[in-house]
Amino acid sequence: MSRVVKLAVIPGDGIGPEVIAQAEKVLDAVTAHSDVTFERTRFSLGADRYLATGDTLTDDDLAAIAAHDAILLGAVGGVPGDPRLREANIERGLLLKLRFALDHYVNLRPSKLYPGAAGPLADPGDIDFVVVREGTEGPYVGNGGSIRTGTPHEVANETSVNTAYGIERVVRYAFELAERRRRRLTLVHKTNVLVHAGGMWKRIVDTVAAEHPEVAVDYLHVDAATIFLVTNPDRFDVIVTDNLFGDILTDLAGAVTGGIGLAASGNINPDGVFPSMFEPVHGSAPDIAGRQLADPTAAILSVALMLDHLGLQDEAQRVTRAAEADIAARDGNPRTTTQIGDAIASRLA
Amino acid sequence: MSRVVKLAVIPGDGIGPEVIAQAEKVLDAVTAHSDVTFERTRFSLGADRYLATGDTLTDDDLAAIAAHDAILLGAVGGVPGDPRLREANIERGLLLKLRFALDHYVNLRPSKLYPGAAGPLADPGDIDFVVVREGTEGPYVGNGGSIRTGTPHEVANETSVNTAYGIERVVRYAFELAERRRRRLTLVHKTNVLVHAGGMWKRIVDTVAAEHPEVAVDYLHVDAATIFLVTNPDRFDVIVTDNLFGDILTDLAGAVTGGIGLAASGNINPDGVFPSMFEPVHGSAPDIAGRQLADPTAAILSVALMLDHLGLQDEAQRVTRAAEADIAARDGNPRTTTQIGDAIASRLA
Ligand SMILES: CC(C)[C@H](C(=O)O)[C@@H](O)C(=O)O
Ligand SMILES: CC(C)[C@H](C(=O)O)[C@@H](O)C(=O)O
Repeated sequence: MSRVVKLAVIPGDGIGPEVIAQAEKVLDAVTAHSDVTFERTRFSLGADRYLATGDTLTDDDLAAIAAHDAILLGAVGGVPGDPRLREANIERGLLLKLRFALDHYVNLRPSKLYPGAAGPLADPGDIDFVVVREGTEGPYVGNGGSIRTGTPHEVANETSVNTAYGIERVVRYAFELAERRRRRLTLVHKTNVLVHAGGMWKRIVDTVAAEHPEVAVDYLHVDAATIFLVTNPDRFDVIVTDNLFGDILTDLAGAVTGGIGLAASGNINPDGVFPSMFEPVHGSAPDIAGRQLADPTAAILSVALMLDHLGLQDEAQRVTRAAEADIAARDGNPRTTTQIGDAIASRLA
Repeated sequence: MSRVVKLAVIPGDGIGPEVIAQAEKVLDAVTAHSDVTFERTRFSLGADRYLATGDTLTDDDLAAIAAHDAILLGAVGGVPGDPRLREANIERGLLLKLRFALDHYVNLRPSKLYPGAAGPLADPGDIDFVVVREGTEGPYVGNGGSIRTGTPHEVANETSVNTAYGIERVVRYAFELAERRRRRLTLVHKTNVLVHAGGMWKRIVDTVAAEHPEVAVDYLHVDAATIFLVTNPDRFDVIVTDNLFGDILTDLAGAVTGGIGLAASGNINPDGVFPSMFEPVHGSAPDIAGRQLADPTAAILSVALMLDHLGLQDEAQRVTRAAEADIAARDGNPRTTTQIGDAIASRLA
């Protein structure tokens, strides 16, 4: 019984195409002798496309992407400060537009200190947690504006919008994940300052917690959570948090577990109404693009998350194990992006 | 020529009174033979006062405090989850109310890895930077609300309000500070998501930068800034950022420089219209209160910031040096709160 998965590939800008080439190589290797085929459509989106055509993500692009079973994305964003991109905001117009339009309400970001990975902490302990970051609300909704812009009397507001509907579904996902893990869930917010949004998060977590008596629940203010991430990261199992706090905590978590070059993520629509999208947490890093300096491991581990999401657990585990074995064997000698991809792919042969 | 400084002392809750007792001891020691006298008024504010009287901070309290030259605060906040405090929000009603009412638009938070202090980083380098956190705007303004509260159709909004007036004054302060330091200034925001507020911050920093050609300016998204704080903290000199990002970065910075038990802060009204307020970055930690377990060093270093702000540079330096010498002499043997205070005070004798 053979299965065909329609995969939209968005290599993007900067190091995106380089790391995606290796991720695809690994995907080829792990499916070489299996009865699943990934039928790929490549979408040239990002800063280059915008500069060439003026388009960031058209309705046609979006409809075409949405007709796939999954999306693999490299990274998007041009050179910071490029005056030709000033009006564009590729991040909002492309990446966030995809997450919002495809209702990726779970932004899943595992943080694991792999044996052999060198993080900055002297005594990191056993780090293995997952951040479940809400992906479709909060300060990311784009409900901001300004008056008297550019004058000494400018006022700029940004409104964080939060709904019980949006929070409950992601909180439920986080509790179910905690049930399959070490049964510890930490809500991170800033309830003492953002009393309305924070209060609602807290109430909903308390309500859902009552249905999961075996999950130990605690709460941390976001500022305190950053302290624990560097002093006691092994205390975490599942963290559930809002869009902005999740953004901040997962970059920090990536650094703490050996660098953003290893951090994978999934933008998940658990209902399966829209395709989910898998991408490394790192950005397009235009300063090192085209020089074979990027670590493709985060993109490769994102492929593993995708395989797992698609129900291909066996393939997912093989990719994860190959990447882990590669990380464990690193000796500090620099390798090119392609060499790392080759090494991981060859472990799957 | 003798000088009298009118000092409002707010010991507060939890470990607040314990650390403030040591801070006052050190203040006594450093002024023992000088011609400046600190005339103190003690204000019993915080969770205990609220529970006893129902008041958090009355107009009379505020007026009385505002009639002083400076404020020394320990920490406020009751036991988390205490049902009797549910309606109170001591943090908003007391601490934030003071910061906003007294126009503490500069929240000054130095981060320094003192010789002898043990942080969590394996290779921290030479950490010595100051976060200039905006203190009177942003997501802290309390412009939030919710509808259908507690129902499945609840919507909770939180609005971050930002003004050119508010940003320009704190940015100017940060540039002037950078001129007196290593002449490096980093703006931290999230301009790719919070485009209106972030755009205004960026424009104002660019404008003020033109008046300070000798200050090297760069920009980091808040998520990236957390990475650098653990991988390369010695790259920072002055960080200028908004109220919420500053809250998060300074807790992380405190952890990275050996713990929140050493992190001092000043809530400054540079115009001198209102008294400035000095407080340790740590909270009231009710779980360890009354047990002589708290480190009073952050409160003592906050006294140094206060002395400096009052123009008593010589006294400020003596307190800083005494605290530094104490930190350098620590051997890991536990000492009580009082013992640490005594040790630092005795170095000033
Ligand atoms: C590029 C940016 C808009 C994005 C975000 O803030 O979500 C990125 O930082 C991430 O974490 O995926
Ligand atoms: C107690 C709380 C309101 C406060 C803040 O968020 O500013 C604290 O975390 C701080 O950093 O001083």
